[in-house]
Amino acid sequence: MIKATFYHAGCPVCVEAEQGFATALNPSNYQVESVHLGNDKGRISEAEAAGVQSVPALVIDDTPYHINFGASINDLK
Amino acid sequence: MIKATFYHAGCPVCVEAEQGFATALNPSNYQVESVHLGNDKGRISEAEAAGVQSVPALVIDDTPYHINFGASINDLK
Repeated sequence: MIKATFYHAGCPVCVEAEQGFATALNPSNYQVESVHLGNDKGRISEAEAAGVQSVPALVIDDTPYHINFGASINDLK
Repeated sequence: MIKATFYHAGCPVCVEAEQGFATALNPSNYQVESVHLGNDKGRISEAEAAGVQSVPALVIDDTPYHINFGASINDLK
C-alpha cells in the first residue's frame, strides 16, 4: 500500500478536491488519510516538511501535489 | 466509467504529475486519457473550455484540477 495524505482546511476548493479527486485514487494501491490542518494544527509542520505550500494538497510517497488553490498554509497557522 | 483527461506539455512537473498521480486513479472507475497540448494544439480550446488554465491539469467529470504548476496554457499556443 502506498500512503497518500490529503491536506485540507475545509474550504470549498478543498471539499471539491477531496470529493472529486482524493476519492478517485485506486483503493487497491493507495491508503488515503485526510487531514484538516485548520483543526489539527499540530500536523502543519509535517505538511510543510513534505513540501506542502497550500491546500488542498495530496502528498503521495513524499511528493506534494497542490490541487488548485484554496488557502496558503501560512494562513492556517 | 468516468472520463478523466490529463492535459500536459511534457514538462518535468507534468511528467511527475502523470507518473505519480494520473496513474493513481482507480482503473475500475476512471478511464484516463493523456493529452500533450504542445503536440496537439488543436485540443487547447477543449482544455480551456473545461476551465484549464495551466498544465499539468486533470479534468474529471468537467471539473478541472490543476496539479502544481508547469506552464500556463497561454504559453502553449
